[in-house]
Amino acid sequence: MSHVYKIIELTGSSPISSDDAVKNAIAAAAQSLHNLRWFEVIETRGHLEAGVIAHWQVTVKVGFTLDAAD
Amino acid sequence: MSHVYKIIELTGSSPISSDDAVKNAIAAAAQSLHNLRWFEVIETRGHLEAGVIAHWQVTVKVGFTLDAAD
Amino acid sequence: MSHVYKIIELTGSSPISSDDAVKNAIAAAAQSLHNLRWFEVIETRGHLEAGVIAHWQVTVKVGFTLDAAD
Amino acid sequence: MSHVYKIIELTGSSPISSDDAVKNAIAAAAQSLHNLRWFEVIETRGHLEAGVIAHWQVTVKVGFTLDAAD
Amino acid sequence: MSHVYKIIELTGSSPISSDDAVKNAIAAAAQSLHNLRWFEVIETRGHLEAGVIAHWQVTVKVGFTLDAAD
Amino acid sequence: MSHVYKIIELTGSSPISSDDAVKNAIAAAAQSLHNLRWFEVIETRGHLEAGVIAHWQVTVKVGFTLDAAD
Amino acid sequence: MSHVYKIIELTGSSPISSDDAVKNAIAAAAQSLHNLRWFEVIETRGHLEAGVIAHWQVTVKVGFTLDAAD
Amino acid sequence: MSHVYKIIELTGSSPISSDDAVKNAIAAAAQSLHNLRWFEVIETRGHLEAGVIAHWQVTVKVGFTLDAAD
Amino acid sequence: MSHVYKIIELTGSSPISSDDAVKNAIAAAAQSLHNLRWFEVIETRGHLEAGVIAHWQVTVKVGFTLDAAD
Amino acid sequence: MSHVYKIIELTGSSPISSDDAVKNAIAAAAQSLHNLRWFEVIETRGHLEAGVIAHWQVTVKVGFTLDAAD
Amino acid sequence: MSHVYKIIELTGSSPISSDDAVKNAIAAAAQSLHNLRWFEVIETRGHLEAGVIAHWQVTVKVGFTLDAAD
Amino acid sequence: MSHVYKIIELTGSSPISSDDAVKNAIAAAAQSLHNLRWFEVIETRGHLEAGVIAHWQVTVKVGFTLDAAD
Repeated sequence: MSHVYKIIELTGSSPISSDDAVKNAIAAAAQSLHNLRWFEVIETRGHLEAGVIAHWQVTVKVGFTLDAAD
Repeated sequence: MSHVYKIIELTGSSPISSDDAVKNAIAAAAQSLHNLRWFEVIETRGHLEAGVIAHWQVTVKVGFTLDAAD
Repeated sequence: MSHVYKIIELTGSSPISSDDAVKNAIAAAAQSLHNLRWFEVIETRGHLEAGVIAHWQVTVKVGFTLDAAD
Repeated sequence: MSHVYKIIELTGSSPISSDDAVKNAIAAAAQSLHNLRWFEVIETRGHLEAGVIAHWQVTVKVGFTLDAAD
Repeated sequence: MSHVYKIIELTGSSPISSDDAVKNAIAAAAQSLHNLRWFEVIETRGHLEAGVIAHWQVTVKVGFTLDAAD
Repeated sequence: MSHVYKIIELTGSSPISSDDAVKNAIAAAAQSLHNLRWFEVIETRGHLEAGVIAHWQVTVKVGFTLDAAD
Repeated sequence: MSHVYKIIELTGSSPISSDDAVKNAIAAAAQSLHNLRWFEVIETRGHLEAGVIAHWQVTVKVGFTLDAAD
Repeated sequence: MSHVYKIIELTGSSPISSDDAVKNAIAAAAQSLHNLRWFEVIETRGHLEAGVIAHWQVTVKVGFTLDAAD
Repeated sequence: MSHVYKIIELTGSSPISSDDAVKNAIAAAAQSLHNLRWFEVIETRGHLEAGVIAHWQVTVKVGFTLDAAD
Repeated sequence: MSHVYKIIELTGSSPISSDDAVKNAIAAAAQSLHNLRWFEVIETRGHLEAGVIAHWQVTVKVGFTLDAAD
Repeated sequence: MSHVYKIIELTGSSPISSDDAVKNAIAAAAQSLHNLRWFEVIETRGHLEAGVIAHWQVTVKVGFTLDAAD
Repeated sequence: MSHVYKIIELTGSSPISSDDAVKNAIAAAAQSLHNLRWFEVIETRGHLEAGVIAHWQVTVKVGFTLDAAD
């Protein structure tokens, strides 16, 4: 069988690390989508306050198997 | 708190100007989404008729705060 | 009237050909969206098994006229 | 019938605005070509004199239906 | 002898396949140019009608040996 | 004589238009640099509030003739 | 277990079709490598003779599981 | 009020991690600039010695509010 | 003396972190190559299972001094 | 007055150097066009024979002032 | 110790060659900065007069070790 | 017959010129590979010492006809 996947774009943020910002984006996607398959990091940015990193902001594309409910 | 943002891609069109095409895309997004935060212009094109610009067509990415309803 | 279009990203797969993977992605989009207008191929990949192409995997952007139901 | 289009690249300039530079490029193309169909903005630059913008310089690709005369 | 080549950009269309759209672009170029040497695919798009591909639209760069007649 | 130019990157903002954001960036550069020669638009973004564009934010590269004072 | 993959770049050619050029590249890789996993199309070009496509030339990246023998 | 931001490019290095290299670049910028606002990762590289990572080297763009002192 | 370097492309994977996936790729390269000099991250992706990151997959280019044995 | 410029793409070749390949492309353009203004190098390639460079092949974009004769 | 480097962008020009334009940009940077470490060519353009190259214009990024004086 | 080509990536260095760095990379490839066909310049960088260019470092892709021995 030939699958079709949908790809959405999310920006996760985290005060801890760039990897943690990715995990937060994935966790948010997983709340409403049940067939997540892969992600790809598109952009890594961050917000600076008082000369230090306040939040890492990482944009990811997330691919999931398309079914009738999505 | 660490936010997660979703990013969608829209093409707005306008017979008036490239900026107006962006505004039309944002206005369409604002009809169903209530936490729009930023946009980025991805591509500026247009349709030509009789040797003049009939419509500017500007593609934007629009980021908004993700909540349960989106 | 100035239209606004939404653009989604899909990956279609096919054991037959790259064009067929595109058609499968379009067919999946057409099941829930009724105003599809254009597509653009973003990436052509594939999965290899036993030294041959098991599936072509082609990612496309698909644009459609935005209306209240989308 | 399947059309073939030719794409040329032009840089329009204008002291007024970026959109006006695009219009000047299209107007120049329309003087010798009669089937202009679309344009795409490739690059937006400008020339500075005395600390202000003397000319906007916008490079566009312009597509037109190919026929025997072109 | 050191050759110089000119490169033009064309979009071919076809209801049949992406490869056929390329062939149509090459065929149109061959009608007026006699020293075609190579092509490169730049973009693969298509027009959708009633949920299926009405036309593949493939943009190619075509290189040919420059001589006095071109 | 062979000039050397330095290129700096600035983001101008404006509630009015994308062109005005560029002009604001150029005006800020002109306050401390006296030999501005050209600019190039790198990115066009904006900040959204209450569903409309609060500020256009346009990033430009600005080139100027390098002399001893810079 | 965490795998490591190596990626090589090949250009396949074919007088028949772009897909066939990909298959020829994969077939050549499969002669000496036994754990091919995926490919990605990087560039699609071709050689023109007498106004028609003599060979499609498609460059692919091919990924395979790294083991001691490679 | 419409702000103007300046963007500088720095490469931070660290023997510890890619995130730590970013933090070192930001810390160096914060020594002389007081209105740092955001950063963006441009490139992640590293120096290898004896088969392991001696230093991560991460290039970032850093944006800050432009004022008279900068 | 003017060195020549060869660059290979590897994808490392890790269930732990993006940095660890890079280290795994470097470690695999170091098993057969003795003059590794630098790496550059090309792409950061990952595999998702049950809504969480199962493996980070990071593609790197690795440069090493070319000698007769390579 | 606001000029409009046309941009064409040429590949020059030379057995001598990359710069000489550019000069050959410009010289060919200058035979039929009289208002050449600038060029930009797009790609530097070459043809290898017997393990050495037989020809440098450099692709340039050439901009010229558009007038009625072009 | 972990160094931090700053990267600036310069355009050098020369009537002689593309390499000479790079050297002129480096020489200008060396007049005020004492820890230059590397450069990277970003863009190669040129100005044409009377159908020949009047100046090569090459844009480079130049990296240097950041210290208190910069 | 349809050939398959393999593409490798090398960085050549030279204290003399950018072209010479390319030649050094080609010469190194020619020592072990006998069917070199083309190259493409990917990146031009250099190492700076005492304010001048110590080495040009040019990265090239080199394509060669694949046969059983490679």
